[in-house]
Amino acid sequence: MREREREKRSNRLTVLPTPDDTRDIIDTIAAIATAPGVGGIGVIRISGAAAAVVLRRLFIPHRQESLHPDGSFRSHKLCYGTVRDRHGAVLDEVMAVFMRAPHTYTREDVAEIQCHGSYLVLQAILAEILAVGARAAEPGEFTKRAFLAGRIDLTQAEAVIDLLQAQSMGGVELAVGQLRGELYERIAAIRDALVELLAIVELALDFPDDETDILVADHLLGQVQEQVVEPLQLLLALADQGRVIREGVKAVIAGRPNVGKSSLLNQLLQEERALVTEIPGTTRDTIEELISVHGIPVHLVDTAGIRDHEDAVEELGIERARQKMREADFVLFVVDASQGLSAIDRSLYASLDDRKRIVVLNKIDKIDKIDKIGVTDKSTDESPLQELSNFFGAVPQVQTAAKTGVGIAQLRDTLYQTIIGEEEMSERISCAPNLRHKMILEKTLAACFQVKETLVTGVPADLLAVDLRVALDHLADIVGLTTPDDVLDVLFSRFCLGK
Amino acid sequence: MREREREKRSNRLTVLPTPDDTRDIIDTIAAIATAPGVGGIGVIRISGAAAAVVLRRLFIPHRQESLHPDGSFRSHKLCYGTVRDRHGAVLDEVMAVFMRAPHTYTREDVAEIQCHGSYLVLQAILAEILAVGARAAEPGEFTKRAFLAGRIDLTQAEAVIDLLQAQSMGGVELAVGQLRGELYERIAAIRDALVELLAIVELALDFPDDETDILVADHLLGQVQEQVVEPLQLLLALADQGRVIREGVKAVIAGRPNVGKSSLLNQLLQEERALVTEIPGTTRDTIEELISVHGIPVHLVDTAGIRDHEDAVEELGIERARQKMREADFVLFVVDASQGLSAIDRSLYASLDDRKRIVVLNKIDKIDKIDKIGVTDKSTDESPLQELSNFFGAVPQVQTAAKTGVGIAQLRDTLYQTIIGEEEMSERISCAPNLRHKMILEKTLAACFQVKETLVTGVPADLLAVDLRVALDHLADIVGLTTPDDVLDVLFSRFCLGK
Repeated sequence: MREREREKRSNRLTVLPTPDDTRDIIDTIAAIATAPGVGGIGVIRISGAAAAVVLRRLFIPHRQESLHPDGSFRSHKLCYGTVRDRHGAVLDEVMAVFMRAPHTYTREDVAEIQCHGSYLVLQAILAEILAVGARAAEPGEFTKRAFLAGRIDLTQAEAVIDLLQAQSMGGVELAVGQLRGELYERIAAIRDALVELLAIVELALDFPDDETDILVADHLLGQVQEQVVEPLQLLLALADQGRVIREGVKAVIAGRPNVGKSSLLNQLLQEERALVTEIPGTTRDTIEELISVHGIPVHLVDTAGIRDHEDAVEELGIERARQKMREADFVLFVVDASQGLSAIDRSLYASLDDRKRIVVLNKIDKIDKIDKIGVTDKSTDESPLQELSNFFGAVPQVQTAAKTGVGIAQLRDTLYQTIIGEEEMSERISCAPNLRHKMILEKTLAACFQVKETLVTGVPADLLAVDLRVALDHLADIVGLTTPDDVLDVLFSRFCLGK
Repeated sequence: MREREREKRSNRLTVLPTPDDTRDIIDTIAAIATAPGVGGIGVIRISGAAAAVVLRRLFIPHRQESLHPDGSFRSHKLCYGTVRDRHGAVLDEVMAVFMRAPHTYTREDVAEIQCHGSYLVLQAILAEILAVGARAAEPGEFTKRAFLAGRIDLTQAEAVIDLLQAQSMGGVELAVGQLRGELYERIAAIRDALVELLAIVELALDFPDDETDILVADHLLGQVQEQVVEPLQLLLALADQGRVIREGVKAVIAGRPNVGKSSLLNQLLQEERALVTEIPGTTRDTIEELISVHGIPVHLVDTAGIRDHEDAVEELGIERARQKMREADFVLFVVDASQGLSAIDRSLYASLDDRKRIVVLNKIDKIDKIDKIGVTDKSTDESPLQELSNFFGAVPQVQTAAKTGVGIAQLRDTLYQTIIGEEEMSERISCAPNLRHKMILEKTLAACFQVKETLVTGVPADLLAVDLRVALDHLADIVGLTTPDDVLDVLFSRFCLGK
């Protein structure tokens, strides 16, 4: 049935439903749509041809004027009333709404019951709905219906789950952009360009004598490059940044004992705590802490959790710190700027190899004091800070006094730049393909390179047509027109119930 | 201001708001109303005179037809659209509804935004609402406004919190009944009877010469008894049952080792598990399990958790089992019916003292086998079962085979009868005063007894009037007309946010 649905959407053909389809279409589903646990309000959603019938069986409006004179529901009109069970007992006082297709989430008739947020009440009402004949919805089934009905494409359906699972506002923004069709539109633009190219190639195939006139390689090459290859490459670059924004990065705070690693972690956490701790379900690991750096989730690992015994540090301590550093995406390497570099600092720093890093020159407040009382080494012209700065060279450096919070804001900016890449600092990303999209986009790009090569070598037009069609098929897969059923099943099973 | 509000409701006077009142009235509040955690849908509720202004500032409807031609919201009409932040960035695609006073929860203008159930999204939208000028609602503040506006009385407000915190369907039913005003109506009927009595007494005070003609003691005594004292006594009886239904009881499964205590617990749990384990936040204690017996929560303690070492049982084991039994509201005393009573059984049973109990004659399936193979003690005419039954006399007894589930349904019925009292078995309680109500009802009853005594002893009518007014004041306290502010504050602070 799905195949046929998709065909309908892609070809705009009218296919009469077979008996099997009819059964599927009248299959009315229901689920609790709000989070489990106690809240003020709970919502149950019903979708399908029988939504109104189910609602009418359970719900008695308080005021008859809420309904049409014939007793039917006014679409999208919220009514106050009671839900009763089979035996007439009142289960709760509720607000209910019926929404007539097609202006609904699923494009089917939808009914919603907003009751008190007791899970017992929600379950009791759901049980009555199922007793009337509706079926318990599978996870993601409402969104799947929205997709199968063609209201949203597959990237938009994926955005719904991304939105629900977002760990930071950066992830929320990406998901909302995708939900609003930004990714779909970029892919549709590439698709349109490919369709245009294919039309030219097919014209050449129809008029083989004029083939060389029609297929002006230079012109077509430019068109492929500008309208297809470059937009694809841009999307692929965005995919990498999108992964970081969605999933975040793992950063390790490293350095020898007593350079201020824990103070640094606490300062970074302090600004975030108000935001982060209010998110229920955020489990705090004693070793790993989640912070949000300009909307990007950063999982911070403090190697101070590793016991700092001065005497044992070159043995066990350093080895464990090194292991943590290997697991991280990048390292915040902390030194005590007032002390200069010790042998341990140098040894630890050497073990970073080619890992991405930011150097934190901590305790700069103490340098000033030392300078003032004239303890600075006068045998060289360099101040200790200048010496350190020279040692680390081109590596991003931030000067901090973690105890008092000096330099923390700049550290956050530097963190963001290091994570996202400096060139992106000024503008927010509003669109980013996920891993599934990325893999397909790479195949699409490969097919387009093939198209370019064919154009350059001047092989026959029918090969061009084949490669263009391959690229088009890939793009159709991204937006869900040709996506295999098992991929869809896996995708929608990631949803929570009631969505 | 509260005082004045109440006065308005009780005396139906029109009081013009002072400047302070006006500020209170335009104080628009907002909160996330759904449970925290990830769900498909999240709801934010806004209440107050500025609800429409706030909604219009954030929400852009998808279709202009959702609004009135002048751009204002159609009341109770659910509209699809987007919520944007101060800078115009889309925070989410949402359904929004504006509900014009007075047909709302608070009797004020109310707006609701139904967004994706991500806590980050909910928080971001709430932050925008607060930025526009609304204030974060205190716990229970929406319901408090409904109460202060006179839409519900105090017993109905209390029912909202009872409903959200109900542990079983019995508790839900009680809360829904109270929410629908069943308790209020019973109290109002008693109040009306008292008002009528007071009118007669005041008439007698106005015409002192006819006092004895007006105050016919016999007639008035009957009226007090039938219309006031008896309904009050019935309510007090219901209060005790209500406490059990709301809070449940603690039952201990006791008995010597190997009589089948754990099998019994498992059988009782098995039927419930489908219901109970689906309630999130239900923490399972290895020792204590929550089951629902015909809607009443029963916290079951299995003393099998106490190590059953045959040799140590008379020492430590029995002592710990005894302690558990002392903590429980009643005991399920299990014996192995196929073995008869051992000395340990008798010793344990003796330690129950006057505790409420049910005797479970377990392993009855084994008796049949023993009977069949002729092992029954022929020296007496009694079968082992008859002997046991005689020993326990009038104590409620149930025969079970816990391993196979035989007798478990009957055990549940017997449990229910023991908890609630046999006379109530046939009808469900739809109304039950809580502890606050009970304490006030007791004072009311005391005042009414005073009225009766005054009538009997024939003391002057002005004393009667005083006692009647005391009783009336108490009832006004229950429904919230004269309840002190600090009591109200404590009461509403028990609410969750957003209700």
